[in-house]
Amino acid sequence: MTTPGTLLSQVLAQLQASPEPRMREVMTSLVRHLHEFAAEVRLTDREWAAAVGFLTETGRLPERDEFILLSDTLGLSMLVDLLGGHAAEGATETTVLGPFYVPDSPRRGNGTSTAERPSGDPAFVSGRVLGTDGTSITGAEVDVWQNGADMMYAVQDKTMPPGNLRGLFTTDDEGRFSFLGVRPVDYPVPVDGPVGRLLEATGRHPWRAAHLHAIVRADGYHPVTTHLFDDESRYLDSDVVFGVKPSLIKHFTPHEPGQPDRPAGIGPAERWYSLDHDFVLVRAT
Amino acid sequence: MTTPGTLLSQVLAQLQASPEPRMREVMTSLVRHLHEFAAEVRLTDREWAAAVGFLTETGRLPERDEFILLSDTLGLSMLVDLLGGHAAEGATETTVLGPFYVPDSPRRGNGTSTAERPSGDPAFVSGRVLGTDGTSITGAEVDVWQNGADMMYAVQDKTMPPGNLRGLFTTDDEGRFSFLGVRPVDYPVPVDGPVGRLLEATGRHPWRAAHLHAIVRADGYHPVTTHLFDDESRYLDSDVVFGVKPSLIKHFTPHEPGQPDRPAGIGPAERWYSLDHDFVLVRAT
Repeated sequence: MTTPGTLLSQVLAQLQASPEPRMREVMTSLVRHLHEFAAEVRLTDREWAAAVGFLTETGRLPERDEFILLSDTLGLSMLVDLLGGHAAEGATETTVLGPFYVPDSPRRGNGTSTAERPSGDPAFVSGRVLGTDGTSITGAEVDVWQNGADMMYAVQDKTMPPGNLRGLFTTDDEGRFSFLGVRPVDYPVPVDGPVGRLLEATGRHPWRAAHLHAIVRADGYHPVTTHLFDDESRYLDSDVVFGVKPSLIKHFTPHEPGQPDRPAGIGPAERWYSLDHDFVLVRAT
Repeated sequence: MTTPGTLLSQVLAQLQASPEPRMREVMTSLVRHLHEFAAEVRLTDREWAAAVGFLTETGRLPERDEFILLSDTLGLSMLVDLLGGHAAEGATETTVLGPFYVPDSPRRGNGTSTAERPSGDPAFVSGRVLGTDGTSITGAEVDVWQNGADMMYAVQDKTMPPGNLRGLFTTDDEGRFSFLGVRPVDYPVPVDGPVGRLLEATGRHPWRAAHLHAIVRADGYHPVTTHLFDDESRYLDSDVVFGVKPSLIKHFTPHEPGQPDRPAGIGPAERWYSLDHDFVLVRAT
């Protein structure tokens, strides 16, 4: 008499001939958990058919990679990030890359603006790139991208120049970088596909907490892919992709308009923000 | 500091607002097993990206439902079959429906042939439909489909009439049915897609053990979806979709050509087979 246990043994036995040991290890664990899940909930025919339909539709969506969004919203992407992290004491923590990164950001000089069009409240971001021993790193690259007041990244908003709110900055001989961006805003992940329906069916909102993205790279160090979150976001505790880590939450300090110490590029009548943050990298061994 | 455990708790917390309790139950178990799997194998960035690519391609294949094939080859379909089964003592066991069933088989009289073209070695199949208490069931429907010597079902082989090797038979007043089919042959599942590559990467063959399909339906009884397997198949112990159950393995009795007792439709020079099998249904309560 076949039972869930004897069936699982048959499937696992067939995987033993995998030529790659790692493939055998991964598939053995995957199949065991898949079967344990189905047996635990006593998955029905009808639910199985709904799941097959959901996965097929997720793969078929032509305009974006919906499976990445599914992985993000189930917390799997952050788990993989966590498992692979170089989480040395004092180093900047990593978070998801997200779907909106575009390589080859425009190179810009320190202190200049990433906003090629009016895009929101100006935010002057500055800091250093350091090693975990406190050494400042000269010539490190700080690659930043973010959204503005319209909640969209340049890659999503065809009315914006492709380099808008993106920039590649290089640290000076004290390890310093700076740029004039805008204060980022909360935004929803795309909800017009199967992942949007799954979020709704599980009573979840689709919002990400406002953040700037950065990848920081330096010769001799592990690069870090991270965010800086706005501490006034409503979604810090419920970011839909679970990307928030406490060490990445920062305060955008507000400044009244018209003061003489305002950075270049900010008009005399503009309210603006500043954020000072050091990125700390782990030496590659 | 985020850990795999705190991350899992965050994701599970977000699922607690699911409006449907069953959705909450299924998604909670699914997410827990998904995270446990990734943590157990320490899934890497690169493996995650390969998995996303595999799933996307599986959904995009236009000509068939590759996710059903994936579920079948991972044993999930048989597990769902097993979990939902009406496995009463003495009743016919169920197995997978498979991807080749087409509704509305041609109605045929008992004893007639399902082969509308020469399709292989003739096999005369007969038996009764019974309740678990031994009562014979008159007017039960026996819906059969199978492949022939070319390893294909009518739905796959455009050169064959669509009703070839398919038929819908009705039991007589003793509960008897019979038809002249052919002896089924072993065949591979489609291997030109991602599932084929996964089978190869895990060192598995793509073969199904030779079988006839049947769905048996009768008023007042649970219908049964099952196979009859040929006991001389090479793949009984390694059927790629794990569909074999010992009670479904049958012997096709060979008969020499030219004997006078051969059934109608078999030529005097043909070698043929016979199979006698009773289907036993569970009364619906």
